[in-house]
Amino acid sequence: MYPDLLARLIEDFKRLPGVGEKTAERMAFAVLELDEDQVNNFSKDLQSAKKNITNCVHCNSISDQEECNICRNKTRNSDVLCVVESSKDVFLFEKTGKFEGRYFVLNGLISPIDGIGPDELPLKKMLDFIKKNKVKEVIIAVKGTIEGETTALYIKKILENCNVCISRIASGIPVGAEMEYVDSLTLESALLNRKEI
Amino acid sequence: MYPDLLARLIEDFKRLPGVGEKTAERMAFAVLELDEDQVNNFSKDLQSAKKNITNCVHCNSISDQEECNICRNKTRNSDVLCVVESSKDVFLFEKTGKFEGRYFVLNGLISPIDGIGPDELPLKKMLDFIKKNKVKEVIIAVKGTIEGETTALYIKKILENCNVCISRIASGIPVGAEMEYVDSLTLESALLNRKEI
Repeated sequence: MYPDLLARLIEDFKRLPGVGEKTAERMAFAVLELDEDQVNNFSKDLQSAKKNITNCVHCNSISDQEECNICRNKTRNSDVLCVVESSKDVFLFEKTGKFEGRYFVLNGLISPIDGIGPDELPLKKMLDFIKKNKVKEVIIAVKGTIEGETTALYIKKILENCNVCISRIASGIPVGAEMEYVDSLTLESALLNRKEI
Repeated sequence: MYPDLLARLIEDFKRLPGVGEKTAERMAFAVLELDEDQVNNFSKDLQSAKKNITNCVHCNSISDQEECNICRNKTRNSDVLCVVESSKDVFLFEKTGKFEGRYFVLNGLISPIDGIGPDELPLKKMLDFIKKNKVKEVIIAVKGTIEGETTALYIKKILENCNVCISRIASGIPVGAEMEYVDSLTLESALLNRKEI
């Protein structure tokens, strides 16, 4: 029904997360309204991001160079390592501006249901990172799902003899959230992890 | 904070309607997860859609050829012309599968506030279309806003001596909608336009 060229563009947009038929149509029509320069840049940026962004040789986070910005930054504290599920999480923590250490990206979590065992994760590389950088504290910052907890416990186990302090980020009520919207597992966790004030 | 290439792609996505910072970030990360072929096609489709999609010489609807699919289709009934605001509307009506006539796209509505007077719309071209194709009925299918009503009245006026039947699509309650969510202007219109059953 649409001109072929537009129909193809709509299909492209539909591959993005959260984009259904209607949104994709809206976006494709919007592209026709953009300046030619903007569309050309968009087109080039897609290709060059895909082509040139790889994983940092040290921490696995995405980077457009062999070493990511954080691993290259000599002022970062290599004593503390924050282990996260994906590169996205690195930038979420960076946005807080409160972490000076370095990161290690697992690019996945242990999930037997999905056939992802410990061997599928770069845990050997993580151990090498920890030894090479003489990491003193490992903060396991993965989500509080079964997969996250399993991964955290597994990492704790393999680090047993490494003489590092291991911690898990706190779970509890989100700052500013209404109590009535907090689920009971989270409330339970918040109660258990209460802190004296 | 993000690698430059990714930051640029995020900016590109933010130019699309309904895409804010968070959604753009999510989309840019998703691009990194797509196959290389998919990204290359996406990139090419953006450029070729922008470059090759123009307006049909007859009806102004978007088309990848000089004449759009509908104007090229000799089985369409040229007696009935549906006048719409934008090319998007053409495809919305086509999706109903209930209209056999042809379309004319105004690419705008009369809107004094935005400085768009009748002269900014291709009304001369519409008149030529109507005469050339010996159109017998003009259905004005623009939205029920002040701009839409003004445009509809103006078109009615300039068609006065053309010996064509002019109609306006019905306004009323959407099919399947709960009455409580229908605004009172729409209810008023639905009442006024009631039909004997």
